[in-house]
Amino acid sequence: MSIRIGIYGYGNLGRGVECAIKQNSDMELVAVFTRRDPASVSILTDSAKVCNVAEVEQWKDKIDVMILCGGSATDLPEQTPQLAKMFNVVDSFDTHAKIPEHFANVDASAKSAGKIGIISVGWDPGMFSLNRMYANAILPQGKDYTFWGKGVSQGHSDAIRRIEGVKDAKQYTIPVDAALASVRNGENPELTTRQKHTRECFVVLEDGADAAKVENEIKTMPNYFADYDTTVHFINEEELKTNHSGIPHGGFVIRSGKTGWNEENSHVIEYSLKLDSNPEFTACVIVAYARAAYRLSAEGQTGCKTVFDIAPAYLSAMSGEQLRAGLL
Amino acid sequence: MSIRIGIYGYGNLGRGVECAIKQNSDMELVAVFTRRDPASVSILTDSAKVCNVAEVEQWKDKIDVMILCGGSATDLPEQTPQLAKMFNVVDSFDTHAKIPEHFANVDASAKSAGKIGIISVGWDPGMFSLNRMYANAILPQGKDYTFWGKGVSQGHSDAIRRIEGVKDAKQYTIPVDAALASVRNGENPELTTRQKHTRECFVVLEDGADAAKVENEIKTMPNYFADYDTTVHFINEEELKTNHSGIPHGGFVIRSGKTGWNEENSHVIEYSLKLDSNPEFTACVIVAYARAAYRLSAEGQTGCKTVFDIAPAYLSAMSGEQLRAGLL
Repeated sequence: MSIRIGIYGYGNLGRGVECAIKQNSDMELVAVFTRRDPASVSILTDSAKVCNVAEVEQWKDKIDVMILCGGSATDLPEQTPQLAKMFNVVDSFDTHAKIPEHFANVDASAKSAGKIGIISVGWDPGMFSLNRMYANAILPQGKDYTFWGKGVSQGHSDAIRRIEGVKDAKQYTIPVDAALASVRNGENPELTTRQKHTRECFVVLEDGADAAKVENEIKTMPNYFADYDTTVHFINEEELKTNHSGIPHGGFVIRSGKTGWNEENSHVIEYSLKLDSNPEFTACVIVAYARAAYRLSAEGQTGCKTVFDIAPAYLSAMSGEQLRAGLL
Repeated sequence: MSIRIGIYGYGNLGRGVECAIKQNSDMELVAVFTRRDPASVSILTDSAKVCNVAEVEQWKDKIDVMILCGGSATDLPEQTPQLAKMFNVVDSFDTHAKIPEHFANVDASAKSAGKIGIISVGWDPGMFSLNRMYANAILPQGKDYTFWGKGVSQGHSDAIRRIEGVKDAKQYTIPVDAALASVRNGENPELTTRQKHTRECFVVLEDGADAAKVENEIKTMPNYFADYDTTVHFINEEELKTNHSGIPHGGFVIRSGKTGWNEENSHVIEYSLKLDSNPEFTACVIVAYARAAYRLSAEGQTGCKTVFDIAPAYLSAMSGEQLRAGLL
């Protein structure tokens, strides 16, 4: 019998989860929950139902794992604890500073209901976190570096779109090659924000907008751009659509450390991702952890977990014997 | 109270473990076991004892985890199951094809004694295996690539040394840049042995040896060199000592895969290591897993485990709260 999955929220991430389920033969999408009128939402999976979120309780015994695909700002802090009272849940909560609070809320709900909740799954937090943790445990004397990109930052693109005179925009975060090279070389540099990443913006102006004024507003925007070397390109709507409609991303987690009785030897551990589609890759990670949630729940475990708490084998459709024979 | 560690076998790996323990303040080296006369073995840790392997049973209750530092060919298949009857053990058994058999033997011993045995810990098998497994679980539609090097292959260096007329030798395994680039590009190439790695040999000849004959014997040696493009440099003993006495290694684990309803998007996951000292890095991984062995045993778990079976958090000296707040 396959693992019955529900998707709660059907945006880019929800569609990514739907695609990922198709690639995992031990899983089955049974329902997608939306705040919209279900009749207005068309999904890709013929065999799955589209339901309004108000109906979710009726699915209590028909879904093994509910995957939450809402946003971290307002959706997940409320939805994950709420749904963990009815379902095993997996979310991609990514507000790093609020993870301890979110963990506590989900843990309380999931424990009281005898369910499993896995939070902050994806690539950062998620696979990047895992790699930071493994590398730290292996090389206690060392230094961590995380670089993001080249990729689209939704938050920065939105910030540009809010400027008066901007019709549309896309912002790429780009790691600085020289910084990456120095880190890989084991030079353990101290890097400022400006030295680590540059920002490249593609902006479509409203008719009659003042390009110089917009460019200045972007480059001096506190938190988002002021601390970075930022390049602004003005392009037309057609060009934005043709060349910048994808959602690529990626990045690098590097730890360089020393070993030996007198710390005479250097080592560099690097993990990197190059992703055509940020939401589809995030969805793939989430779906693997949905398998883990199902298995942990079947073992009778309850409460909130993160990627740190879950043995790798739980993610794989292969048996222990197959893993040892084929991948060890 | 710190975790009391024993080292069984004091070669390069054993010394690496000793150095790694020094960097982990929750651990303490209590004894090193050797087949040699203990009086002839000097170690770096003042507070630890050197004992003959014959005395090991007397340490049954004084050591929390025994780290086995022998070889995979003859030492570990015998020693790990044997010592798992008395201690929690960790080894670096690396004969991939014989892992299932070794697992079964260690599992039986450890279960009967109520101990934990963690086998095949290091970087390959070990961290490379973990990364292959995670990447396979995340991208079910994809292709795996493992490249080794640039680094010293002990087995290939030994094979050259056995040739008549060779006084000493060092062999480097080197990944082919063009193959790496193609894989990173998501081209999913089918690569032959020759296309993936080259081999570079530094050879010191005995007086009067025939260089051309030695070079030919190396390049045509079945299994070791015949399937590779091999370069042979003849150097003098001094040069070998000055420039080739280190034991660097490393490598790359890459999985490229497709996502999307029609597999229209490509993704590349890459994990790489650049190591000044192969045995010291291997030792660091083993020591982190010794912490896990201690904790799993304290929880009452028994039997044989591999890196696939152990939740990442067990490796870290940090608490769950610290990990979630600092590394997630």
